[in-house]
Amino acid sequence: MTIWYSENYTENCKFDIKVNRHIYSEQTPFQKIDFFESEEFGTFFTLDGFMMVNEKDEFIYHEMIVHVPMAVNPEIKRVLVIGGGDGGTVRELTRYEGIELIDLVEIDERVVRLCQEYLPITASKLDDSRVRMHFEDGIEFVKKYDGYYDLIIVDSTDPIGPGEGLFTIDFYNNCYKALNDRGILINQHESPYYENDAQEMKRAHAKLKNIFEITKVYQYHMPTYASGHWLFGFASKVYDPISDHKDKEWERLGLITKYYNSNIHVGSFMLPTYVQKMLENAQI
Amino acid sequence: MTIWYSENYTENCKFDIKVNRHIYSEQTPFQKIDFFESEEFGTFFTLDGFMMVNEKDEFIYHEMIVHVPMAVNPEIKRVLVIGGGDGGTVRELTRYEGIELIDLVEIDERVVRLCQEYLPITASKLDDSRVRMHFEDGIEFVKKYDGYYDLIIVDSTDPIGPGEGLFTIDFYNNCYKALNDRGILINQHESPYYENDAQEMKRAHAKLKNIFEITKVYQYHMPTYASGHWLFGFASKVYDPISDHKDKEWERLGLITKYYNSNIHVGSFMLPTYVQKMLENAQI
Repeated sequence: MTIWYSENYTENCKFDIKVNRHIYSEQTPFQKIDFFESEEFGTFFTLDGFMMVNEKDEFIYHEMIVHVPMAVNPEIKRVLVIGGGDGGTVRELTRYEGIELIDLVEIDERVVRLCQEYLPITASKLDDSRVRMHFEDGIEFVKKYDGYYDLIIVDSTDPIGPGEGLFTIDFYNNCYKALNDRGILINQHESPYYENDAQEMKRAHAKLKNIFEITKVYQYHMPTYASGHWLFGFASKVYDPISDHKDKEWERLGLITKYYNSNIHVGSFMLPTYVQKMLENAQI
Repeated sequence: MTIWYSENYTENCKFDIKVNRHIYSEQTPFQKIDFFESEEFGTFFTLDGFMMVNEKDEFIYHEMIVHVPMAVNPEIKRVLVIGGGDGGTVRELTRYEGIELIDLVEIDERVVRLCQEYLPITASKLDDSRVRMHFEDGIEFVKKYDGYYDLIIVDSTDPIGPGEGLFTIDFYNNCYKALNDRGILINQHESPYYENDAQEMKRAHAKLKNIFEITKVYQYHMPTYASGHWLFGFASKVYDPISDHKDKEWERLGLITKYYNSNIHVGSFMLPTYVQKMLENAQI
């Protein structure tokens, strides 16, 4: 018997992974969580049938979401992570000694607990003393702060289900307010290739452009997300990700990375023409 | 009834495309050629079951294989294309008025004739007066030349079947000889993500490094090739693709492109650390 996990990228194409074992399945009040074991990607987990994290390429996503802002402002001390219950983003953040506080706000505690059990590769640093875990709605959480954080990372699912509110103007406005005057917002920014993803990419960019002084988008090669061409948004009050890139300072920290480096930091902001145009013409 | 075209990326994962119609199928002396019509990718064709070209994203591959060398040496006049029977590479080359001769050497005439019939989006410029078509083995063809070409583009399949000989030391040596003293070789350079592709990527790079003065690798986002993370090799006798990049000169030509631009030219050579390391440690 062969079990295939299938993920629809659109109605007309899909990606299939041969699965050795369906480790665990649970319907929480928020979403369906499944863990699988596979030959090609190791252990992976899905939310409502979409690949979130696997052992083979999670390093790409988590390095790119964290090291880009940290190499622009190495003085970052207070970080808010919204979503990211797998712990991979927190793991990368804990590598910076200068960071004093990491608030992880994950609406679904079960994601965290199950990742601690089945996916230690990402969840292993959630017990770092600087990490405070909050199992509540990030949309409400962020409203309580004013000028407090140096960095907010929106490590969300796609804008359907529990992730939907993390792509709204109100939410982005509240993030702006919760950031201090040198604050940076990084968000999961979808993909330019398949129509639905591209729509969400454009909408997110148009909203952020109206709120933040500086809004850029950067790309990375993420083979297990639809099309493999995925983006993060870099929105900030004062820092430009290229002209304020502190490459030498970052390199002196001596962090060993597998995907991120000072070159790719720069190169990831250099976008194909068709993506640039989509972003320039983006409307809410 | 639903027909799915399935392509195995490895034994343990695959990509499936919903097909409206299997337009055509033929077994030639070299390979099996199939044409399909699909909602998501338009018309596409496969060789021995591997996606070669589709209407949705062929522009990415063909722009990146042609405009990178042309923006390094805009004086290129004589070009040899080996493989590339779909005509997409030739189409991009014909946009340069300065190019005087394009030799297209495709071992399988049926690829060309069928693309002319079913895939005019790529094959439409094969009747340009500067194009000479040769339906013969590129490995033998290139042996006949000495210091003749400014640019050789190896637009090949993977190193199995008819493409195998286009990844050998002998072949690369003959390309070096066929190029003039400012010659550039661009080759299809596989991918770093899945083990088999990564092996071929490393081997190709190790071979080229022993022959050419300058050997670099550049990447692009190609959603319909395995992993979406795909590479070309840039090997040359004198030109460095970054320090000799003639961005302003290229921009003055006024070519409209959808993927390539002067920024992505630079960014595409900025590789993730794990890819850099694979290339540095590559052995034949």
